[in-house]
Amino acid sequence: MADKKMVEAITSMNEDFAQWYTDVVKKAELCDYTSVKGCMVIRPAGFAIWERLRNELDKRFKETGVQNVYLPMFIPESLLQKEKDHVEGFAPEVAWVTEGGQQPLTDRLCVRPTSETLFCDYYKNTVHSYRDLPQVCNQWCSVVRWEKETRPFLRSREFLWQEGHTAHATAEEAEERTVQMLNVYADFLEEFCAIPVIKGRKTDKEKFAGAESTYTVEALMHDGKALQSGTSHNFGDGFARAFGIQYADKDNHLSYVHQTSWGVTTRLIGAIIMVHGDDSGLVLPPKVAPVQICIVPIQQKKKGVLEKAAELKESLGKQFRVKLDDTDKTPGFKFAEQEMRGIPLRIEIGPRDIENGKCVVVRRDNGEKEEVSLAGLEARIGEILEQMQKDMYDSAKARRDSQTYEASDYEEFKNIFAEKTGFVKALWCGDRACEDKIKEELAVTSRCMPLENADVTEGSCVCCGRPAKKMVYWGKAY
Amino acid sequence: MADKKMVEAITSMNEDFAQWYTDVVKKAELCDYTSVKGCMVIRPAGFAIWERLRNELDKRFKETGVQNVYLPMFIPESLLQKEKDHVEGFAPEVAWVTEGGQQPLTDRLCVRPTSETLFCDYYKNTVHSYRDLPQVCNQWCSVVRWEKETRPFLRSREFLWQEGHTAHATAEEAEERTVQMLNVYADFLEEFCAIPVIKGRKTDKEKFAGAESTYTVEALMHDGKALQSGTSHNFGDGFARAFGIQYADKDNHLSYVHQTSWGVTTRLIGAIIMVHGDDSGLVLPPKVAPVQICIVPIQQKKKGVLEKAAELKESLGKQFRVKLDDTDKTPGFKFAEQEMRGIPLRIEIGPRDIENGKCVVVRRDNGEKEEVSLAGLEARIGEILEQMQKDMYDSAKARRDSQTYEASDYEEFKNIFAEKTGFVKALWCGDRACEDKIKEELAVTSRCMPLENADVTEGSCVCCGRPAKKMVYWGKAY
Repeated sequence: MADKKMVEAITSMNEDFAQWYTDVVKKAELCDYTSVKGCMVIRPAGFAIWERLRNELDKRFKETGVQNVYLPMFIPESLLQKEKDHVEGFAPEVAWVTEGGQQPLTDRLCVRPTSETLFCDYYKNTVHSYRDLPQVCNQWCSVVRWEKETRPFLRSREFLWQEGHTAHATAEEAEERTVQMLNVYADFLEEFCAIPVIKGRKTDKEKFAGAESTYTVEALMHDGKALQSGTSHNFGDGFARAFGIQYADKDNHLSYVHQTSWGVTTRLIGAIIMVHGDDSGLVLPPKVAPVQICIVPIQQKKKGVLEKAAELKESLGKQFRVKLDDTDKTPGFKFAEQEMRGIPLRIEIGPRDIENGKCVVVRRDNGEKEEVSLAGLEARIGEILEQMQKDMYDSAKARRDSQTYEASDYEEFKNIFAEKTGFVKALWCGDRACEDKIKEELAVTSRCMPLENADVTEGSCVCCGRPAKKMVYWGKAY
Repeated sequence: MADKKMVEAITSMNEDFAQWYTDVVKKAELCDYTSVKGCMVIRPAGFAIWERLRNELDKRFKETGVQNVYLPMFIPESLLQKEKDHVEGFAPEVAWVTEGGQQPLTDRLCVRPTSETLFCDYYKNTVHSYRDLPQVCNQWCSVVRWEKETRPFLRSREFLWQEGHTAHATAEEAEERTVQMLNVYADFLEEFCAIPVIKGRKTDKEKFAGAESTYTVEALMHDGKALQSGTSHNFGDGFARAFGIQYADKDNHLSYVHQTSWGVTTRLIGAIIMVHGDDSGLVLPPKVAPVQICIVPIQQKKKGVLEKAAELKESLGKQFRVKLDDTDKTPGFKFAEQEMRGIPLRIEIGPRDIENGKCVVVRRDNGEKEEVSLAGLEARIGEILEQMQKDMYDSAKARRDSQTYEASDYEEFKNIFAEKTGFVKALWCGDRACEDKIKEELAVTSRCMPLENADVTEGSCVCCGRPAKKMVYWGKAY
């Protein structure tokens, strides 16, 4: 039995989901506030999760030909202003460096909120001929946006992310890369993070500042709110025209390049917490977990117990990420800690188990206990972890589906959001006025137009009743 | 034969070493200047080197129990000012953020030049009892120092680095960790980067702002100038007292923690260029090289050549990092490019080689050519790469040793530096006035007091003639 005191330390998610989230972040020691307002420290347990996500994504990026680079963290004001929509979107929320080396700066520098302008500056110098294309670069870095309200991992003034930026010879190739990276994100979220997502396109109202089109993967959190979990933008040649990025084709004819950008952030950690967590704390999918197995010796002072536990750690460690908790805390306390930290499996082993050549394996996601023979332990653990990864996805998907509704008129639409939180699929006329009205009256936004079957020729707009053009997923968003 | 035109594109290192360095950085496409004054872009070929260095070091760190974290990039002015020596050392060269979200800031924020103050702020909140110690954290990030003169990788206003920060219960443990990390750096530089180093301690004049003692690894570049390649600092309890970081021991008695910090930066890439490079460009040690083998097909339009080359890439690729250059450039141009980029081995394979079941393997460091049977190629390549890694270290060490001199009085000391550049080993009285005089008159600084046999009881100071206390390595530094 897990230690009551520690378990009671966090608020129940049904009672107050926001407080539950904050408690988990704090008690699982993922991150903490700092003396720097709106900025957080990502603690070892949190950063280890980010490293797992980053390494897996980086591998998947490189398989598609992505090369990593590093560009400056500062953007001169004159450079930021070159693309009109872009600067309008970001200028209100940037931080400005106005003094360096005890001298005032003549062209002040903003701390990058995103690096489209810098990549344009770089590509302008690097791309000359069709031989220099495509450019498929990415950087892992931190960016700054001066948010007023902040929440750990979900919204902070500085956060970690990756931003991919590409340049292509043709519009078709740019569109292909935009969708390719959306699919990389979707597969990564589903296969690695066990988070089901809706792939779709943003409406013009919700798209990125300066983009022709923005694609998104949208996930549903435990409380029914949507989290935009990754975006991929097609810029067309808008930035290329603003920055003068041209290449000579085989006939020496000059054309503008076509660009894309795509990114995910540390808010992925927030998604993992809010999709999989429960009232005992964090629950990490086996593929994500920095530690997959926590071995807890029972009656560890009895002869042979710690030795056997250490032996298990050694042998399992060849195949899995394993920790042995041999501190002098009580087993109950250790169980509670392992649960709070979301470690997928717990192995309990005491004198009687050793005598019987067995141990007890407990799954974090559903609490299932199983006696496993020490002889075949590695193989069985492998099976259990694989099953757990699959079950976590299935159960998240079942919940997401049960929280996805449909509405055919505004009355129905309003009533659903009055009683429930989740995705509502409903038709839309394509007019921004309807989006504005829905946002104002219900605090609901269009999350995306799904990639498949978004175009409709029948039915009427859920808001105004005029002929509908698109199927839209609507929801309340983080 | 390498293409003349491309080879002639870089200045000879004997003619103008600084220009040679700049040419290599540019032509090997490692990095480039940007529109942001004093900041550079690290291009794919340069960043791939940094990734190799980072991943290897990170692995070595973790083997000693280091955990990665991420702290904010901003430091409130009030926090920076808490430790007197530290703020005096860094305040003149920081960049200040004075406005965020279109509002002036009341407590302005500096962009971190280093994060001792933030880690102190973090440890103050995290460390309460002896059970919370030691704290052994590290972060990979970028830092900003407002340098007036900048050079790619060696000195720029923003650079990438890692900074480790630890807190310990005792002074002994802190000293142990300081030296342990110095040894991690030294082993990494020698074993992985093939760069021989002198391990030593900095004099008080040269130590880090706020440190009790600073240890350093010093390497000698091709031109005889010294490059400080990694530092490890013991802070004692100075920062702990300034920030109030105390822990309760087993008897509930409060004590201050003892702290260390240690770091290496992207200037390591500069060290690799300047230790191993030659007049044909970059030369990368096999362990560092992102691409270890470049396969160049000869008469590639002849039937079967490209197929065989692709087959080699496939089979060698299982064990090594291999690239096949099947572009339509001439073989000579491909050779020159491979040499410029420092790829350790080139494999030439043409119709006659295929007929004879052989290929030609050419080493980048010494130009040695060898006909190797395709049957035993993997094994032989493995041997050659291993030998090359060893030879590169040996040859760098032989050059370093040949550029290390000794002087017993000031006349001799002056004469050496008038004619040569290198390390000069000479005794020192321990008085800062002598260091100041040497720096002023000769632009020479004390690089370090070697870890072994630095204390002397005989002999006289090379500068003032008074009884000597320390053996010191002197040199001109980057």
